[in-house]
Amino acid sequence: MGAVVVQHIERAESAVIAGLAECGVSTVHEAQGRRGLLAAYMRPIYPAARIAASAVTISAPPADNWMLHVAMEQLQPGDILVLAPTSASDAGYFGDLLATSLQARGGAGMIIDAGVRDIRELTEMKCPVWSKAIFSQGTVKETLGSVNVPVICAGALVNPGDVMVADDDGVCVVRREEADQVLAAARTRIAKEQDTRARLAAGELGLDIYDMRVRLAEKGLKYV
Amino acid sequence: MGAVVVQHIERAESAVIAGLAECGVSTVHEAQGRRGLLAAYMRPIYPAARIAASAVTISAPPADNWMLHVAMEQLQPGDILVLAPTSASDAGYFGDLLATSLQARGGAGMIIDAGVRDIRELTEMKCPVWSKAIFSQGTVKETLGSVNVPVICAGALVNPGDVMVADDDGVCVVRREEADQVLAAARTRIAKEQDTRARLAAGELGLDIYDMRVRLAEKGLKYV
Amino acid sequence: MGAVVVQHIERAESAVIAGLAECGVSTVHEAQGRRGLLAAYMRPIYPAARIAASAVTISAPPADNWMLHVAMEQLQPGDILVLAPTSASDAGYFGDLLATSLQARGGAGMIIDAGVRDIRELTEMKCPVWSKAIFSQGTVKETLGSVNVPVICAGALVNPGDVMVADDDGVCVVRREEADQVLAAARTRIAKEQDTRARLAAGELGLDIYDMRVRLAEKGLKYV
Amino acid sequence: MGAVVVQHIERAESAVIAGLAECGVSTVHEAQGRRGLLAAYMRPIYPAARIAASAVTISAPPADNWMLHVAMEQLQPGDILVLAPTSASDAGYFGDLLATSLQARGGAGMIIDAGVRDIRELTEMKCPVWSKAIFSQGTVKETLGSVNVPVICAGALVNPGDVMVADDDGVCVVRREEADQVLAAARTRIAKEQDTRARLAAGELGLDIYDMRVRLAEKGLKYV
Amino acid sequence: MGAVVVQHIERAESAVIAGLAECGVSTVHEAQGRRGLLAAYMRPIYPAARIAASAVTISAPPADNWMLHVAMEQLQPGDILVLAPTSASDAGYFGDLLATSLQARGGAGMIIDAGVRDIRELTEMKCPVWSKAIFSQGTVKETLGSVNVPVICAGALVNPGDVMVADDDGVCVVRREEADQVLAAARTRIAKEQDTRARLAAGELGLDIYDMRVRLAEKGLKYV
Amino acid sequence: MGAVVVQHIERAESAVIAGLAECGVSTVHEAQGRRGLLAAYMRPIYPAARIAASAVTISAPPADNWMLHVAMEQLQPGDILVLAPTSASDAGYFGDLLATSLQARGGAGMIIDAGVRDIRELTEMKCPVWSKAIFSQGTVKETLGSVNVPVICAGALVNPGDVMVADDDGVCVVRREEADQVLAAARTRIAKEQDTRARLAAGELGLDIYDMRVRLAEKGLKYV
Repeated sequence: MGAVVVQHIERAESAVIAGLAECGVSTVHEAQGRRGLLAAYMRPIYPAARIAASAVTISAPPADNWMLHVAMEQLQPGDILVLAPTSASDAGYFGDLLATSLQARGGAGMIIDAGVRDIRELTEMKCPVWSKAIFSQGTVKETLGSVNVPVICAGALVNPGDVMVADDDGVCVVRREEADQVLAAARTRIAKEQDTRARLAAGELGLDIYDMRVRLAEKGLKYV
Repeated sequence: MGAVVVQHIERAESAVIAGLAECGVSTVHEAQGRRGLLAAYMRPIYPAARIAASAVTISAPPADNWMLHVAMEQLQPGDILVLAPTSASDAGYFGDLLATSLQARGGAGMIIDAGVRDIRELTEMKCPVWSKAIFSQGTVKETLGSVNVPVICAGALVNPGDVMVADDDGVCVVRREEADQVLAAARTRIAKEQDTRARLAAGELGLDIYDMRVRLAEKGLKYV
Repeated sequence: MGAVVVQHIERAESAVIAGLAECGVSTVHEAQGRRGLLAAYMRPIYPAARIAASAVTISAPPADNWMLHVAMEQLQPGDILVLAPTSASDAGYFGDLLATSLQARGGAGMIIDAGVRDIRELTEMKCPVWSKAIFSQGTVKETLGSVNVPVICAGALVNPGDVMVADDDGVCVVRREEADQVLAAARTRIAKEQDTRARLAAGELGLDIYDMRVRLAEKGLKYV
Repeated sequence: MGAVVVQHIERAESAVIAGLAECGVSTVHEAQGRRGLLAAYMRPIYPAARIAASAVTISAPPADNWMLHVAMEQLQPGDILVLAPTSASDAGYFGDLLATSLQARGGAGMIIDAGVRDIRELTEMKCPVWSKAIFSQGTVKETLGSVNVPVICAGALVNPGDVMVADDDGVCVVRREEADQVLAAARTRIAKEQDTRARLAAGELGLDIYDMRVRLAEKGLKYV
Repeated sequence: MGAVVVQHIERAESAVIAGLAECGVSTVHEAQGRRGLLAAYMRPIYPAARIAASAVTISAPPADNWMLHVAMEQLQPGDILVLAPTSASDAGYFGDLLATSLQARGGAGMIIDAGVRDIRELTEMKCPVWSKAIFSQGTVKETLGSVNVPVICAGALVNPGDVMVADDDGVCVVRREEADQVLAAARTRIAKEQDTRARLAAGELGLDIYDMRVRLAEKGLKYV
Repeated sequence: MGAVVVQHIERAESAVIAGLAECGVSTVHEAQGRRGLLAAYMRPIYPAARIAASAVTISAPPADNWMLHVAMEQLQPGDILVLAPTSASDAGYFGDLLATSLQARGGAGMIIDAGVRDIRELTEMKCPVWSKAIFSQGTVKETLGSVNVPVICAGALVNPGDVMVADDDGVCVVRREEADQVLAAARTRIAKEQDTRARLAAGELGLDIYDMRVRLAEKGLKYV
């Protein structure tokens, strides 16, 4: 149960990851049976980022960002850091220096159930972050944690190598081994929605498109 | 006490509604005696929308958006949907498909004491939403609710047909039957404030404009 | 212990204040030993403002903005108002009229552990505000408070004349009498970080730059 | 829209009120169609109180308890005070002096969407209070409010004279004019539950008592 | 990914479970490497209950307690129900009728990341519950969930058959397959603490017992 | 600005401290001009404790209780520990072992803007604690803090040697140098309230005792 760094993790195929990014959080979440959402308090530091990336996970002590440095070495191009503190913290674990390092290693961004700082610089650098808080509170480098172990981040289980999908709606995790079937389901969903969207845009009602009127009446809905 | 859809509701005059939109939330709130504000957690999904519209209300079960489809049929051009869950929920009741339907029917937007999703698409569609949360969490269509009944939305009583005024400051409800007198009071207030604004801009102090110095002294304020 | 207005307060040198503004909140916070941050819930009403200014403090009753008018007279060009309610409040103490007055007096902005309103107007006026809430809720002018006394604002002690540094990361207070040495420390830190940033950008790891590997091994970190 | 005291209000019959007290909050809430609950944050200051009483309502400014004194005169034996602040407040509006007055007038207790203090004394006096907070924060007597007007208290609409039912589960409001039919429905429910309770106590399953197995299978539940 | 009921789950040995109950939450949490705590908001409905039991898990829709009836059939004597809603809910899923059923089946109690009601009755029945909220809000029986699947309950992963340890400090989950070694570690810890407790009670300082003075000095602590 | 332990602090006279304990939090808070309350979230772990004691303050890192051991040596009989984390934390810094040490040194209890654990044992030991949270989450001993420096604890400034008054209503801090005059004011208040209490108990109204009717009418209150 000690502090470990798992150096070799499996990742999903990059084409699948790219496909999931295009689908977006809400669609992916539906396509995998309404599972995998991180808590609603996880918000992007700037709007309109939309990414998917393989998780390099970090279990870190509260207000101690030492393990971020350790994790940086495990990062492969296109990966995203996912940090869960072992006890709730709003401290600012991540700022412009670490973002510089992350981008130099080809990292895609950061998902952190804690705080982040240097918001203006991160926005200018186009380094997307989804966090629980924006807070300058400094951290120390005193206590070990682990890298690439399963973590519970903002209420969701994230295994190293799982695919994180993140956009303006929030963050969703997709199991690595289910990624391609979730992508297929998401694409099917999108195709089907396009037809529905056209009918709705033409003024048809969901009541008719989805054939709801009989069932509503059976349940006892009364029009007065 | 069953599930009902009230099909015919009264609405305020469209000119009055348009007038209230111009006045904005803070002025309207003051003009009607500091009543009618929805809770401060109701925030717009994108800045700078400013609208007023007649409420089509929805009382819905938690994480069940069936009644949104029912309500859509009751919408008249210029109306706004106002959804209050019967038990607190952050689930994402409303997204781009329903927004497509809403706009096809001429709806003005959505006010929801729960969650919303597809933020980027809604922003691009210019479909304004004021919500408690942004969250992708999917909903079901299993349990009935009611449409066009009085609801308590984010701490405020909203009757169907009441005028919802919403902008970057939040949301305020105006009773339908008081709408024209509130508009008159709001315009009077605006006119009066323009004069005050000019004097303040010229460097005069509120202390003098509002003649506060004597009363402050009587209350015991000491300058040291 | 009565209601007082302290009319003469000391301020830091304007060159020092301007220097602190350039350094930004996160750097200043670190440079003074990780002290002085206001709570993470203090957020700017619009992004990308970055200022530093001398605090004119206000201790005000909940939902009563009378003392704001009193404080306005004590404002000198470049000062910022810092309001702490005596009991928690989200009410909208400050809006476009008071902002007009503040700018006419040369004030730099407002920091308020309560609510603010007229967000759109304040944004257009470029009047920066950091607040706990955006809320239209009106206030009264009935009960006295004090101006230019020490206050606890969002969890931090602020003395009149202390330097408030505020940007997208939040708000930090610097003791007036420590302002020049904090500025010096902040500039040293920035200079040092530029070198580190260059090395990180070139792909070096923090693990090596900060020489962490030995200490991590001593603490027992295991690579598997 | 000014400050008013409504002196004459209707009340439900005392036998009906007493009957509702015996039924308790959860049963009454169910019996009236799952309506009328105040927010879950409304908690009793000591356990095992169980009452029902007619509401004398108070709309009060934040941290200003002046109207409590005004309301005390309107209290009839058996009534309960229901206070809703016009803007959120945790201040301690009510303590042992006001409780002494309340009991001298035959009042049954207090329901307050704000703070209360002197908890130990109130407990010793057996003066039940349901509140949002326990907080000593003092209040002023500066700004008017209203007595016996409709208020929204902890998310529920309360009209003067409505019956408040309160116990360890929280607080529920029953419309005065529906009180006797709600009592009848509650008693029917209790009678029915006694039979169910006996069967459950004997080891029968709800699955069988409520005949759920077929519908579960139809919905698609799979046993593995 | 559909709705399933897993009928056969493994459980830890009853002697091990009983041993963990004696050790209590804080000790067990430390003994397993500071893992496994549910969120601090999970509180007992009455003080001084202290139990350990095998988890029968429930993944349930918000405000829908249908699956509780399904789970009841899967309960074996000594088991505890662990319910996690698929979307946050404070609704009262569990009350005295279900508690009667639970006790008739030999169930040990309930852990629920949502609401509970009939507090007085549950307390009289000595049916311990740890919950997020006390709230009467009724639930429906409309939507399926699953029984005996892994759930994330109050931020912790719980597998069916894991041992739940719960007392006045909160709730901790122990992996079924680690239960005996965690018990051994907990007992070792308790034995060791007894010695330390005696020395502390005699007035010795932790500074000396744990030999901290040198390390404090090395870190730079200054006595002034 | 480093980590320091201030070894010699001034304390108020023990007779004054004992007198303040008898007066209780709400009275003391009023007697010193409604200042000094800690946040309403600071609650006793068991009811009916009522104490006053000199503060030995601790500024500690989040989830690191090392400084508690350091502070224990600075404790004199009758003192109380007051811990403020440098960044918000719910971790359980204090449990039965530290309580044993505290009581062996004659300490009166603990006030902590964070978590506490071993609630049952602390209750049995009659070791009163006022805390923000009850949580088993373990802490480390890695990072220095300071002892007997001014801290902001739950929103209030506490200097070492200040008198902490705590009971079921919460916690209030009294400046050491003002303690005797606050005690005198509190006793005056109590004496005055006894007369008022007798009149209220006899059925007189506050409206008459405090002579409020004229002022209410002047403000515009209308009886209808």
